[in-house]
Amino acid sequence: MKNCQWVLASHAQDEANETTWRLVEGEVPHPGGRQILVRTQWLSVDPYMRGKLNAGAGMQVGDVMQGGGVGEVVESQHPDWKVGEIAEGLDVGWQKYAVLTPDRPGASKVNKVDTGAAPPQAALSWLGMPGLTAYFGMLDVGRPRPGDKVVVSAAAGAVGQLAGQIAKLAGCRVVGIAGSDQKLDWCKAIGFDETINYKKTPDLAAEVGRCCPGGVNVFFDGTGGVIHDAVMKNLAMAARVAIVGRVAVANKAGGDDIGLRASSRLIATRAVVQGFVVYDWWHRREEALQRLANWSMAGSLKFREDIVNGFENVPHAFMRMMRGDNLGKQLVRL
Amino acid sequence: MKNCQWVLASHAQDEANETTWRLVEGEVPHPGGRQILVRTQWLSVDPYMRGKLNAGAGMQVGDVMQGGGVGEVVESQHPDWKVGEIAEGLDVGWQKYAVLTPDRPGASKVNKVDTGAAPPQAALSWLGMPGLTAYFGMLDVGRPRPGDKVVVSAAAGAVGQLAGQIAKLAGCRVVGIAGSDQKLDWCKAIGFDETINYKKTPDLAAEVGRCCPGGVNVFFDGTGGVIHDAVMKNLAMAARVAIVGRVAVANKAGGDDIGLRASSRLIATRAVVQGFVVYDWWHRREEALQRLANWSMAGSLKFREDIVNGFENVPHAFMRMMRGDNLGKQLVRL
Repeated sequence: MKNCQWVLASHAQDEANETTWRLVEGEVPHPGGRQILVRTQWLSVDPYMRGKLNAGAGMQVGDVMQGGGVGEVVESQHPDWKVGEIAEGLDVGWQKYAVLTPDRPGASKVNKVDTGAAPPQAALSWLGMPGLTAYFGMLDVGRPRPGDKVVVSAAAGAVGQLAGQIAKLAGCRVVGIAGSDQKLDWCKAIGFDETINYKKTPDLAAEVGRCCPGGVNVFFDGTGGVIHDAVMKNLAMAARVAIVGRVAVANKAGGDDIGLRASSRLIATRAVVQGFVVYDWWHRREEALQRLANWSMAGSLKFREDIVNGFENVPHAFMRMMRGDNLGKQLVRL
Repeated sequence: MKNCQWVLASHAQDEANETTWRLVEGEVPHPGGRQILVRTQWLSVDPYMRGKLNAGAGMQVGDVMQGGGVGEVVESQHPDWKVGEIAEGLDVGWQKYAVLTPDRPGASKVNKVDTGAAPPQAALSWLGMPGLTAYFGMLDVGRPRPGDKVVVSAAAGAVGQLAGQIAKLAGCRVVGIAGSDQKLDWCKAIGFDETINYKKTPDLAAEVGRCCPGGVNVFFDGTGGVIHDAVMKNLAMAARVAIVGRVAVANKAGGDDIGLRASSRLIATRAVVQGFVVYDWWHRREEALQRLANWSMAGSLKFREDIVNGFENVPHAFMRMMRGDNLGKQLVRL
């Protein structure tokens, strides 16, 4: 029994590619005191991981690629964990076997997955970090009111599809922006009122304006870049802008991100723009997961996964997600 | 007795110039029911007025140029106003005589000036709209905490010099940015801890970073443009950015304001950027004026005026203020 790991081979300058990681084999480690060994079943690839590939972002060449995953406990030195239980953690990494430390604080805590409630990979998507991002980003930063016009960029992605549905639950009119008609068909199927294919729309700002008469009250932004600029031109009075991600410009390792300065529009509208990282809300994780589970059981939260099979394909899954070729939350099943 | 008025002669494309206004003479009007006639003594010129000069901003060619002023009541049809009292209002306009309607709601209300408490022109500066902008913009949007590093742009201007002193009262370390050493000498004289002459600083972002080790907690921005970009690169965790003005880029009538997109830094720091217009806080005007007066009496709020004499020089005063040639709050004494 061998361990396999994808380790960082070189920091990325722009897009990650085949030379960014390399596969190494090694011994399966053993857990120390109050640790567990898990055999990875699912790995998550998410846009935030692109930032980790930049030089100076914390990862060294040779390090196991960081990332969340779900696995079965195969060895336990922790009194609260039994072999056969399912664990979810952000510290699994791109490897077949991982030693985890369940008692770590905050977001590094290892969570037990109740496979009776939902499939185990849900802990990596709508019942996990992306779900929490959508929940707190929309409700606590976006602060939607009934009747608000809400724009969600990266609308068919792991976070976007949930953010849009949560805004619908809050009584809003929701416009989704994505880069393929197939993605937007999914958005419509789960209740988005209008959709915009930014790749097919020459004047994106005008189209956002057409979809949001009176302006955009809440902008839940997962992309940044020119999509960001187009929506910022359409803010309503007292709008709230949640800066959740920047997948559209994340491939630039260095240099400045140049585009529209929004000062004029911010003064005119008194809008609030807030940067968001879900871990700041981690202490309210249980509240959010309960709500998300209730909404799902009631049929008002639907979720689409895009599954790639095989540990050897993790980099491929990451790269296709960054290119926007996935349809729904990108996962890898080992 | 004739009235003189500066009326809009042509909308401005970039900088306002001699052709933007023309001087017209006419009869002195008479007040109607519940109105008063004032003879203008002081006029205020402020950066926000540049926006009014754009086509489509509400002013038509031939309209009297809008702006706040202070004058003596020379005729009254209002039971609460007596001849000889001093009135301050945002609806005075660039004219020697103005009919005012004291009962107008909100920011258009006409206020009595207590000339025993301060010189009458203070109602146009530290005891008026600029003072309120500094007070609410710093305290309610900037939310300074003791020990915070605060950056104020347009630091020697009407609003900036007050915003910096208020941050000092709140226990902060304050850095002022302006465009001349003379302006910055004044900032130092009133307690700013550090100053940056942006015209003499090749790498402004680096210099802001040097002045604010650990990052900028509060950015009170009156300029926009490249100064804005430089400070945004230095935000601390959970920073607050008050977008109060954009004098550096206000001369662009149309087109997009292109510069640094801050998304990456906003996510990393969870910073909040908020557009600000003082009239949203107008219902708390009395609270703020009382505090400002108390601080002034206690010697902890100093204020510098830059006075141009003569009604014929109002456009000149506006243009020199927009060029940054003034030192302190630009006023015109008739």
